[in-house]
Amino acid sequence: MYKIGIIGYGNLAKGLESSLNASPDMRLTTVFSRRADLNINTPAAKVEPMDRLVSYVGQLDAVVCCGGSATDLPKQTPLVASMFNFVDSFDTHVDIPRHFEAVDTAARKAGTVGVISAGWDPGLFSIQRLLGESILPDGDTYTFWGKGVSQGHSDAVRRIPGVINAVQYTVPFLNAMSQVRKGLRPELSTRQKHKRVCFVVAEPGMDKMKIKEEIINMPGYFLDYDTSVYFISREKFMLRHTKMPHGGKVFRTGTTSIDAATGIKTNQVMEFSLKLDSNPEFTGSVLAAYTRAVVRLSKEGAKGARTVLDIPPSYLSHKPAMQLYKELL
Amino acid sequence: MYKIGIIGYGNLAKGLESSLNASPDMRLTTVFSRRADLNINTPAAKVEPMDRLVSYVGQLDAVVCCGGSATDLPKQTPLVASMFNFVDSFDTHVDIPRHFEAVDTAARKAGTVGVISAGWDPGLFSIQRLLGESILPDGDTYTFWGKGVSQGHSDAVRRIPGVINAVQYTVPFLNAMSQVRKGLRPELSTRQKHKRVCFVVAEPGMDKMKIKEEIINMPGYFLDYDTSVYFISREKFMLRHTKMPHGGKVFRTGTTSIDAATGIKTNQVMEFSLKLDSNPEFTGSVLAAYTRAVVRLSKEGAKGARTVLDIPPSYLSHKPAMQLYKELL
Repeated sequence: MYKIGIIGYGNLAKGLESSLNASPDMRLTTVFSRRADLNINTPAAKVEPMDRLVSYVGQLDAVVCCGGSATDLPKQTPLVASMFNFVDSFDTHVDIPRHFEAVDTAARKAGTVGVISAGWDPGLFSIQRLLGESILPDGDTYTFWGKGVSQGHSDAVRRIPGVINAVQYTVPFLNAMSQVRKGLRPELSTRQKHKRVCFVVAEPGMDKMKIKEEIINMPGYFLDYDTSVYFISREKFMLRHTKMPHGGKVFRTGTTSIDAATGIKTNQVMEFSLKLDSNPEFTGSVLAAYTRAVVRLSKEGAKGARTVLDIPPSYLSHKPAMQLYKELL
Repeated sequence: MYKIGIIGYGNLAKGLESSLNASPDMRLTTVFSRRADLNINTPAAKVEPMDRLVSYVGQLDAVVCCGGSATDLPKQTPLVASMFNFVDSFDTHVDIPRHFEAVDTAARKAGTVGVISAGWDPGLFSIQRLLGESILPDGDTYTFWGKGVSQGHSDAVRRIPGVINAVQYTVPFLNAMSQVRKGLRPELSTRQKHKRVCFVVAEPGMDKMKIKEEIINMPGYFLDYDTSVYFISREKFMLRHTKMPHGGKVFRTGTTSIDAATGIKTNQVMEFSLKLDSNPEFTGSVLAAYTRAVVRLSKEGAKGARTVLDIPPSYLSHKPAMQLYKELL
């Protein structure tokens, strides 16, 4: 049994915890947290303060960093990589190369190995985008997200003065997806692919029109989209908007030949789709599978940072190779 | 530029040829064939008889075996593996472990490396089944094929006395797929997943009822399915049934938690779908990408047989790792 540590204990960590508990070859032994009074769902695992991390060197097969990408992971993952094999779900797309370099440097120095940016986007969606463009070079890739809750956008709305609570749903346009699925290879602007829908609980007496204006004109989050804002009661919010569903689709549509006589194109469409009742539970399940891969890589003597693009799929399974060939090929 | 050889020149080989010609880093240099008078679509490539294969040792980065799984590949791929890096699309599911062993033995002895059973099923669908069961262990995997032409079933119908030409479409039941997509995890028999539809051109004067009975009762091919048989004219056949479209879907639906109070399950649905205007052109494109991976593995000193489950996705691309991280993660 591989011994796994987790840093943090938010929704993602809980999803990972439950996936580790369901696996035949890994077990959660330690949760590291800033909170001393933490109660966790795994009786056999220990809760430790963050500053005890160093005392576990040599006792854990891998440590999964479940902090946020904005401020936690840029520090946490390189630190962990200097002591343990590691996994994170760093998802600030534009900063991934820099994060990779920092983590890779720490890992090579320490002789550890691990995966950054595991999850579904980045993660499984990245794999599908790679398969798509490698197999159909004359083609276009489209990613749609939702319908689902974007934590980043929900947070952004909650930071507006006068907002008590808020949730933001990213909603893809079905007619845009259907054009893509037909292989029409449409050019779609940001605004033509998704709309954004916000449900907001405002403090009594606040100017709702002003809050709405502030939301729909927020650069980087809402300005490039058509956004709807609905003000609802605290009760309705608790009843209807506390789940964290998500999902999305990656399409690659390409042409492999054109009939010389008729001009008719031979179109090929690849589609990968996720429909998730719980985003953190699914992402935690992906992290668990990549944690297994990391431990296996480590046992082979691998060192440094990897991404999901660098891991053979078979490393995600606990089954021996020949069994996988028999059952899955 | 990697120099690639192809054995055989059927529809699959032509699909591969056109994909190699569109790639920035590989070129087709030689087609080996039993036919002396072969005309190929790549003017710069040479046509050679099969017995000249051995004289190319050391001159090709990989050789792709495009023969059939029933009789060609069981001999061809081990022979090629004893001289060259290799790729094949061996697709007799039940014989894959045995084929793997034979090819792996030859390859390890010769110090070559290659991939067997590349394509989409086995191939991309195998990868999706592996991702599914590794990430959602408490779940079910479903594979649907079609609507599309099954070569094996079409051949079986054509072997019936009195049949001039025939095509068999495998058609999945949409309501079965829709139950799966909803996460209902239904138990589906073979008959409940697919039906089979045959279009047959019969010799004039033959007993059509007898041909039909022979088709629908053929064990291993039609007996376990509901099969429709339509007799059509030679002209209609040529007009409507000479394309080779195919496709299919792999679903993994799983549960990551159950609400203790309500009993409501948290369901997660992964779906991978292919909609192909041309099965051989798409399969050829998959083979081209895995040929690149094989050459890259070889340059790293790898030896022996591999399957698509063992290849890191990044090996399929000609782009450097950091560019992939930037563009796809």
